Amino acid sequence: MTAKLDVQALLFDVFGTVVDWRTSLTEDLTKFGAAKGLKADWAQFADDWRGLYQPAMDEVRSGRRPWTILDVLHRESLEKLLVKHAISGLSEADKDHVNRVWHRLEPWPDAVEGLTRLKSRYIIGTLSNGNVGLLTRMAKHGKLPWDVVLGAETARAYKPLPQAYLASAELLNLAPGQVMLVAAHNGDLAAAAKAGLRTAFVARPSEYGPHQSRDFKADHNWDVVTDSFIGLAKAMGC
Amino acid sequence: MTAKLDVQALLFDVFGTVVDWRTSLTEDLTKFGAAKGLKADWAQFADDWRGLYQPAMDEVRSGRRPWTILDVLHRESLEKLLVKHAISGLSEADKDHVNRVWHRLEPWPDAVEGLTRLKSRYIIGTLSNGNVGLLTRMAKHGKLPWDVVLGAETARAYKPLPQAYLASAELLNLAPGQVMLVAAHNGDLAAAAKAGLRTAFVARPSEYGPHQSRDFKADHNWDVVTDSFIGLAKAMGC
Repeated sequence: MTAKLDVQALLFDVFGTVVDWRTSLTEDLTKFGAAKGLKADWAQFADDWRGLYQPAMDEVRSGRRPWTILDVLHRESLEKLLVKHAISGLSEADKDHVNRVWHRLEPWPDAVEGLTRLKSRYIIGTLSNGNVGLLTRMAKHGKLPWDVVLGAETARAYKPLPQAYLASAELLNLAPGQVMLVAAHNGDLAAAAKAGLRTAFVARPSEYGPHQSRDFKADHNWDVVTDSFIGLAKAMGC
Repeated sequence: MTAKLDVQALLFDVFGTVVDWRTSLTEDLTKFGAAKGLKADWAQFADDWRGLYQPAMDEVRSGRRPWTILDVLHRESLEKLLVKHAISGLSEADKDHVNRVWHRLEPWPDAVEGLTRLKSRYIIGTLSNGNVGLLTRMAKHGKLPWDVVLGAETARAYKPLPQAYLASAELLNLAPGQVMLVAAHNGDLAAAAKAGLRTAFVARPSEYGPHQSRDFKADHNWDVVTDSFIGLAKAMGC
């Protein structure tokens, strides 16, 4: 199937596809809570934080709010959640540390090996709603070997708006069809395909832990369907 | 001296500072000319091409022309030079190949080692007038281990306009003073310093070959003054 493709760059959704945000957040926050003597249901806290992700971006996508990077949206959501979970007494430095947990997410076990193999033959980069600073620090933390860090901030548009995909291809001097989006989310791939990109689905059935309700499987005939970055590398001839 | 600095990212001028454009262009074009049976003074061709670089960007800097990436400016300059050097009969594919010589520039011998050392402690990236696609492919060609590819295209402003430096720091969530520009050109460093960045001068006295007329030495007390990326790494504690 991939023999027919003229793909020069693989761009990756990051949260859930490359990194395991739920386990990382829960463990990092649990450690922080223990050090500070704070009690909370940190897994629930993580889920709640992620739950505020789409509504926060919707304000920007709709134009009701001017361009705002994800670090700022995360910080605003954090303030709400501290109230909801009755956590008080944190300094600004504490809150900054907690907010930067998104810069310290751990890759899925197959991610670095798969990316390293793909990098030998393709341009590999991010196409994430995370901002450049967040993604750059996460890559250093997790040793993700990106060639380039692209996404919502460089496009000034949050996925799944078409501009997020189209501007990322354009920044690489590529036609949309020369770029493949890799994602664990069928909705992201559907938007990418509509913008003309090639598509690869990588199943991450434990992304949401016990609350996973969708994206267990590809719901469409994407160009590649697999369950790890190793499988993706093989499918792409690496 | 560097002990007082709070630098988190080192961003690099690229043409002349990281890569030896003149030797690379001359050798690449000589090879191309031999394969095509074309005769020309390719070193002069390289110098002429670089000579059209600033005037082409001035059209964009001044606002007389809307934002245009360097690959397009290079291609327009190439068309002029083919006439000037009386080179005819090239196909569009040939011209595309020649224009992409800027994607195939070779690093100075100390560049990869120095960058690799600096990467262990700092965010390292580009802050170049080259476009993202050009810089990304050049990095793959020369194995330059950037964490992030930034510059004129992500800032939508050509250096030495202040916005080129300020937007690059902002994309990393850093204050200008937390970013150090590394360049072989005193003028670039002067503009960066004026925008609030830290500065490192790396002498590249053979950048322009026999035509070098300036930038043999630092003409100001920059934060770091050295003659290689190894020296820079040492000065920055790596």
